[in-house]
Amino acid sequence: MMNKIEIKYCSQCRWLLRSTWMAQEILTTFDGEVSELTLKPGTGGIFEVIANDVLIWSRKEQGRFPEITELKQIVRDVIAPDKSLGHSDKVNKKVI
Amino acid sequence: MMNKIEIKYCSQCRWLLRSTWMAQEILTTFDGEVSELTLKPGTGGIFEVIANDVLIWSRKEQGRFPEITELKQIVRDVIAPDKSLGHSDKVNKKVI
Repeated sequence: MMNKIEIKYCSQCRWLLRSTWMAQEILTTFDGEVSELTLKPGTGGIFEVIANDVLIWSRKEQGRFPEITELKQIVRDVIAPDKSLGHSDKVNKKVI
Repeated sequence: MMNKIEIKYCSQCRWLLRSTWMAQEILTTFDGEVSELTLKPGTGGIFEVIANDVLIWSRKEQGRFPEITELKQIVRDVIAPDKSLGHSDKVNKKVI
């Protein structure tokens, strides 16, 4: 329960709502497993997600936003690798 | 732009959505003045707002949640005392 998530977003791009939606999804799915989630407004098109100081998503690198199920899988892999995310885990693996 | 806000909420009480709504309001109103806003899930009916390490709202102490205009005024008083919050400032002063 000492896991920390950060979401850095570009406020000029109006990505606050998208970021807080993802924050809600992460805090709901990882209830009891995330101790804090920090929203950091930025500029210049930044959108990054950091889990326990590890950069797990960068819009600049990936060229897109993550799907929400994809984001949860990547968060899970860092903070709770044995956790099942239910049917969305299987669905996404089939698609990929 | 180095101001930090924390919202501690009771996840068992299902106050996540209320807390993220307040987070959005604060990040929107204080765009460029808040560098990070951290959501911290807790238990036992906790609802606290901390601005720059100062406890500015405790549901246990006040016995209620803040009105959103009230909360912004208290945040403003700590992080940007000279900032006007527009007409809601006047309206609330009249009511009080």
